[in-house]
Amino acid sequence: MTYCVGLLLEAGMVLLSDTRTNAGLDNIATYRKMFLFEEPGERVIGILTAGSLSVTQTTLARLRDAIEDSDASGETSIMLAPSMLKVAEIVGNTLAHVRQDIDARMEASKVSTSASMIVAGQRRGGAMRMFLVYPEGNFIEATEDTPYLQIGEHKYGKPILDRVVTTATSLDEARKAVLLSMDSTLRSNLSVGMPLDFAVIEKDACKVSLRRRIQKEDPDFTRMSHAWSDALREGFSRIEI
Amino acid sequence: MTYCVGLLLEAGMVLLSDTRTNAGLDNIATYRKMFLFEEPGERVIGILTAGSLSVTQTTLARLRDAIEDSDASGETSIMLAPSMLKVAEIVGNTLAHVRQDIDARMEASKVSTSASMIVAGQRRGGAMRMFLVYPEGNFIEATEDTPYLQIGEHKYGKPILDRVVTTATSLDEARKAVLLSMDSTLRSNLSVGMPLDFAVIEKDACKVSLRRRIQKEDPDFTRMSHAWSDALREGFSRIEI
Repeated sequence: MTYCVGLLLEAGMVLLSDTRTNAGLDNIATYRKMFLFEEPGERVIGILTAGSLSVTQTTLARLRDAIEDSDASGETSIMLAPSMLKVAEIVGNTLAHVRQDIDARMEASKVSTSASMIVAGQRRGGAMRMFLVYPEGNFIEATEDTPYLQIGEHKYGKPILDRVVTTATSLDEARKAVLLSMDSTLRSNLSVGMPLDFAVIEKDACKVSLRRRIQKEDPDFTRMSHAWSDALREGFSRIEI
Repeated sequence: MTYCVGLLLEAGMVLLSDTRTNAGLDNIATYRKMFLFEEPGERVIGILTAGSLSVTQTTLARLRDAIEDSDASGETSIMLAPSMLKVAEIVGNTLAHVRQDIDARMEASKVSTSASMIVAGQRRGGAMRMFLVYPEGNFIEATEDTPYLQIGEHKYGKPILDRVVTTATSLDEARKAVLLSMDSTLRSNLSVGMPLDFAVIEKDACKVSLRRRIQKEDPDFTRMSHAWSDALREGFSRIEI
């Protein structure tokens, strides 16, 4: 499994993904699940993926092919699409087609493949937008009321987001929130694992403002994780029954 | 859905369940999911249920019939069974049979029913034991390493248990832990709802030491819930990035 989360805030967008991929418990590997596309100052797009690796890799490969194609147009390339809505449509259509292709091959073995994605971005002159693309290619969008989207193992890390994240949350606080949301997920679910990929896209920058791979021994993440454990235990012990 | 949790501690056992049952989002009702059986000083058994209401209700009805049957024996009645292991076996067998009966009726409509249960108890002279009974009737047991069992929507409320509960946790702290675990679940999942049923079985008492229904407006639960929110927000804001 996977855990990916994206926040759409007034100050910008924050993306976080893990990297664990497993086919059974005895076949664990590290694969990137965050993909960043940018033409600095013009357009930035971040895609987070969850689900069948064969589906997500093929979808990303086709999206890249379409960008590099000599006939690339606003209908086919996410880097030329006239709006973020169109970007989400292109990703959704590509994902749906890849799934159909792979499912057709898998039919004999009665296995079904599935994948979902978070697509976030901004083009110059447009607004920041963030979408959750479902396996069928349809999608929903993050709004002021619900400024975050999650894919994969989303339940463990939802309570902390529900409590602390609003659209007014600063990018620093947002970074803390997604890392602690991931920390809760890592502790409770083996199928989500380090290292993590983290990115910040500041509003109207139209580029990736910060990108970082957080390794297992990362001192900042470890300190934050311990501080959160301590804060929870202390808060817990202070509550009167 | 449902959320039920049981803790098996050195000092005793703590049980908590919600009461929401839904058939779709437009058909919500309140049903008890905690069932307590006792012969004070001799034997106490608590059963928590999750899953298809027709399965859990029929299973409980058959367990009660077996207790009251004039031919009741240690092989059929959970109140006469010679060990808690045997109690878990009787519950598991009854559950598996009920499921088979109901699934046979449902076959035409391609609907499958399922249910799982937590069975906790102690008989005089025996040890406290707690089992999670799967839909197929097999079961696992809580141990020192993992002193809690959950059924239903267990993911939201798992992080807090993972962090604060050990077998040495006192019954008061345990009460706080399960209520806050439930609080996180209630906030993040609509299919889990108040009121709650709470019970404590002290070690070697062989009776229900405390049982309480916690209503939606319960002042203690509300205060604890707010205090926990405050503690989380405060702990969160104190962590340096």
